Amino acid sequence: MGKTFFIIGGARSGKSAFALTLADGMEGTKTYIATAQAYDAEMEERIRNHKDERSEQWHTFEEPLEVAATIKKAGSGVALVDCVTLWLTNLMGADLKDSEIISKAADLSSACRQSAANIVIVSNEVGQGIVPDNPLARRFRDLSGKVNQLLAESADEVYFVAAGIPLKMK
Amino acid sequence: MGKTFFIIGGARSGKSAFALTLADGMEGTKTYIATAQAYDAEMEERIRNHKDERSEQWHTFEEPLEVAATIKKAGSGVALVDCVTLWLTNLMGADLKDSEIISKAADLSSACRQSAANIVIVSNEVGQGIVPDNPLARRFRDLSGKVNQLLAESADEVYFVAAGIPLKMK
Amino acid sequence: MGKTFFIIGGARSGKSAFALTLADGMEGTKTYIATAQAYDAEMEERIRNHKDERSEQWHTFEEPLEVAATIKKAGSGVALVDCVTLWLTNLMGADLKDSEIISKAADLSSACRQSAANIVIVSNEVGQGIVPDNPLARRFRDLSGKVNQLLAESADEVYFVAAGIPLKMK
Repeated sequence: MGKTFFIIGGARSGKSAFALTLADGMEGTKTYIATAQAYDAEMEERIRNHKDERSEQWHTFEEPLEVAATIKKAGSGVALVDCVTLWLTNLMGADLKDSEIISKAADLSSACRQSAANIVIVSNEVGQGIVPDNPLARRFRDLSGKVNQLLAESADEVYFVAAGIPLKMK
Repeated sequence: MGKTFFIIGGARSGKSAFALTLADGMEGTKTYIATAQAYDAEMEERIRNHKDERSEQWHTFEEPLEVAATIKKAGSGVALVDCVTLWLTNLMGADLKDSEIISKAADLSSACRQSAANIVIVSNEVGQGIVPDNPLARRFRDLSGKVNQLLAESADEVYFVAAGIPLKMK
Repeated sequence: MGKTFFIIGGARSGKSAFALTLADGMEGTKTYIATAQAYDAEMEERIRNHKDERSEQWHTFEEPLEVAATIKKAGSGVALVDCVTLWLTNLMGADLKDSEIISKAADLSSACRQSAANIVIVSNEVGQGIVPDNPLARRFRDLSGKVNQLLAESADEVYFVAAGIPLKMK
């Protein structure tokens, strides 16, 4: 069985670059699961920049919702999921209830544990600022925290990234 | 004398669950000091959920303001304060000045050091986002940081929690 | 050659005090490079408070923009830059483009590596909250993260500070 690596950090903390370095060092076929949806020009540019950072070895799947199913298709080697936070945004945008979202995260955790591939998962810490004014942002923050806990709990290794420097937490 | 443990993390980082696990492993009577006030339905549900996570061993005090005095009544065993951030919100809501709030935090720190009980204190990191627009949020953020520093300085052990994973800082 | 120390933490995390303690323990002349500009009373008070915390050994330069040039003038001993976040705010306020700001940060990184002095740099983590609504705050958050990564990469030692407790990351 493969191992699961959970990488958490703030925006622009270097977490994606660290995840890519980690995954590039692993053997076998390389599957990149991008959860981003290009709904505006700013996002399009971010997606393009991320793609430019990857070598040609990587096969990219754009999958905004069904991440667990995509992992099942990944086979052996390594699969990199970037990122959980946008996936959660997409699930909320698709009008899923909290319980349905937690259930999706449990499916992802289970798919990681059962996969022959090493899975590297990237997520954001979004709960270390002031409590947001609007209820939707609070719901997003709560769900992010719960989903991060669930995925980190079942991961073999957990890294916290700040200023591009990874710190092994588990 | 008992020891003091200071647990800091973001919203939904798993800090309360970690604090509870830590405290559950300690001997003696168990005192839970809840600083939360149920001013709306969302908060009521959060309080109820936290209560459901505790075993029947725990004796709960609801104390929004006089945390140091409540710790003095706790006797030996272990007392868990959850959380400093809501306590600070309550002190600000009670129109205390900054100097009075810092003085209250110094009293809490002193009560922890003098207690026969082990004290586990839970607090939030709220200063790692963008500077908030409104002055009250900036004041809250400044006071949170100062109070956290004061309590962590006098604690025997300090843990930073992200995605449910505790990292020992001291 | 001197060493570079990069200190990152949230608002009111105790990062400046830790940086000062670190620098106070080093030998030679002491140069403090303050990037803050007193554009209102709140900021004036913060600057005054920071100054009061330093011993008379320190020679202060107030330099909102040309930090790399000021480091070159610092000679040997130790130079403390507090902080990168306000410097970035000043560069954005001076209407520099993103590429110009990144280039300034590369100059700073280069000046640190070439200096005979030990350089201690203080910066904020601002990317661990909810995505800000306004585009300027998002741009600031992105640039902060990029600049922090650039400076941490070339630093000899990196510390993450929370609740006044430093954690060595590198």
